[in-house]
Amino acid sequence: MEQRLTIVGLGVSDLKTSNDFYEKMMGWKKLPSSNESISFFQLNGILLSLYSREKLAEDANVSPIGSGFRAVSLAYNTRSASEVDDIIQELENKGVRVVKRPQEVFWGGYSSYIADPDGHLWEIAYNPFLPLDEEGNVVPS
Amino acid sequence: MEQRLTIVGLGVSDLKTSNDFYEKMMGWKKLPSSNESISFFQLNGILLSLYSREKLAEDANVSPIGSGFRAVSLAYNTRSASEVDDIIQELENKGVRVVKRPQEVFWGGYSSYIADPDGHLWEIAYNPFLPLDEEGNVVPS
Repeated sequence: MEQRLTIVGLGVSDLKTSNDFYEKMMGWKKLPSSNESISFFQLNGILLSLYSREKLAEDANVSPIGSGFRAVSLAYNTRSASEVDDIIQELENKGVRVVKRPQEVFWGGYSSYIADPDGHLWEIAYNPFLPLDEEGNVVPS
Repeated sequence: MEQRLTIVGLGVSDLKTSNDFYEKMMGWKKLPSSNESISFFQLNGILLSLYSREKLAEDANVSPIGSGFRAVSLAYNTRSASEVDDIIQELENKGVRVVKRPQEVFWGGYSSYIADPDGHLWEIAYNPFLPLDEEGNVVPS
């Protein structure tokens, strides 16, 4: 297997609510291939998909029953610490739930967390040790 | 916010077991920046990180309690249907748990699911409608 990933798929309880979150709060645009059952967002080289959590469980052949911590986080790294503050303030002004306020953390970065409508966790962080290229890709080290 | 992602972080119950899975089963190589607390794998423009699920919860300021379906899937798309069969057979031979055997699915693809040691779901699939470039990135449409 090549060392890569194609799609991060999030199961959601209400697709319209989640669409609104990623479109209006995050400010992202859906791909035209999205339809009333599934939404796709083109990220850097990968896709984010939103799909009914029951249908996602069915697709994966597993029970849809589950609750609490998912042990998954999605990180959006910024290019400066002040950008973390700006993004969190903007998101909070729009009504997004801030799970952890921006703060300096032990590994030398500046980190915060928000939750999407289903509680999927996004870390918004600045990591001075992890350079990004112009497109926002992690520079291979 | 730019339309991108930096890190997919998976909380794991035992880092060594998970390292073995991603190194020996998936055949991937850790970054030198990995240490005894966290592992990083350079994927296409993003990183995959493995970290204690308790510490991940603590980092995110949420309870670590959770069970069952996580409503998250990570998809690895192949360049042909037969490659799905080959990968699943190889992973199964190595002892990986196959959650859904490769099969034609309603959207016109050929899909299967495996689970990592903590039950994080990876879909291994061929989607004839989603072209990949040479590096395995999704071609923007």
